[in-house]
Amino acid sequence: MRAAELATDYPTVTLDSDALEAARMLAVQKLPGVLVVDADGAPYAVLPASRLVKLLVPAYVIEDPALAAVVDEHHADRLCQALAGRSVADTLPNEPRERTKASVADADDTALEVAALMARERSPLVAVVDSRDGDRLLGVITASHLLDRLLEVT
Amino acid sequence: MRAAELATDYPTVTLDSDALEAARMLAVQKLPGVLVVDADGAPYAVLPASRLVKLLVPAYVIEDPALAAVVDEHHADRLCQALAGRSVADTLPNEPRERTKASVADADDTALEVAALMARERSPLVAVVDSRDGDRLLGVITASHLLDRLLEVT
Repeated sequence: MRAAELATDYPTVTLDSDALEAARMLAVQKLPGVLVVDADGAPYAVLPASRLVKLLVPAYVIEDPALAAVVDEHHADRLCQALAGRSVADTLPNEPRERTKASVADADDTALEVAALMARERSPLVAVVDSRDGDRLLGVITASHLLDRLLEVT
Repeated sequence: MRAAELATDYPTVTLDSDALEAARMLAVQKLPGVLVVDADGAPYAVLPASRLVKLLVPAYVIEDPALAAVVDEHHADRLCQALAGRSVADTLPNEPRERTKASVADADDTALEVAALMARERSPLVAVVDSRDGDRLLGVITASHLLDRLLEVT
């Protein structure tokens, strides 16, 4: 069982994608996160749904949760503006180490290699690329899918 | 919009649950993680699918990925044994700070309070309890569900 066979279609956005559209996609498809690819289609990062939630919440509320309770619910209609006109690149943390890394496996890697990569990097998903075809993205392996296949074998 | 209305049914396991059963549940339901509750039904931690993947991989493979490629695929049938006979409690890291925290909101918290909690604790899901009913678990709010409701308002 190789990474290429384990890879499944998974939604991606580019760094230039509209942040609000990305948020809607995550919301509608009930995804914990989406894979962000660069202009060449190479895996760049993972954008977790919780990151977008964070951007919707005014900074003063994150700092002082007591303030959240007193924000008028009817003023929640301004929350959306935090994402309006921004790109996916704008939503990612500036500090590389703060970003959720997109782990990358090669098409030929074994299931165990992918599992070891996921375990080491604590990544919720691994992008699979074909190094013999200019690192073309073949798909994604989520932790639950890998778990499914590893348990199936046994 | 209060946490009680935002909470949805979400799979839970107890600390005593069978680890292999929990892994199968995550695999079949394609969940990124499951909520672990204690003997009283109170939220205790989140068990991410990637944690279970990690436990299936022999330690020497995690340390030296090169070894993963040479492990005979046919011996993968022993991987399952890493979880056999173990409880969910056995699968959680011993160090509390290593565990994925289950954030807890009260039934009366506003959507913005839940969002602030999620943002602050970077939690993929928030458990909702009713403090007026002995902290009974009402359900779970995932980041994508909260995103959906926050965007809907706008």
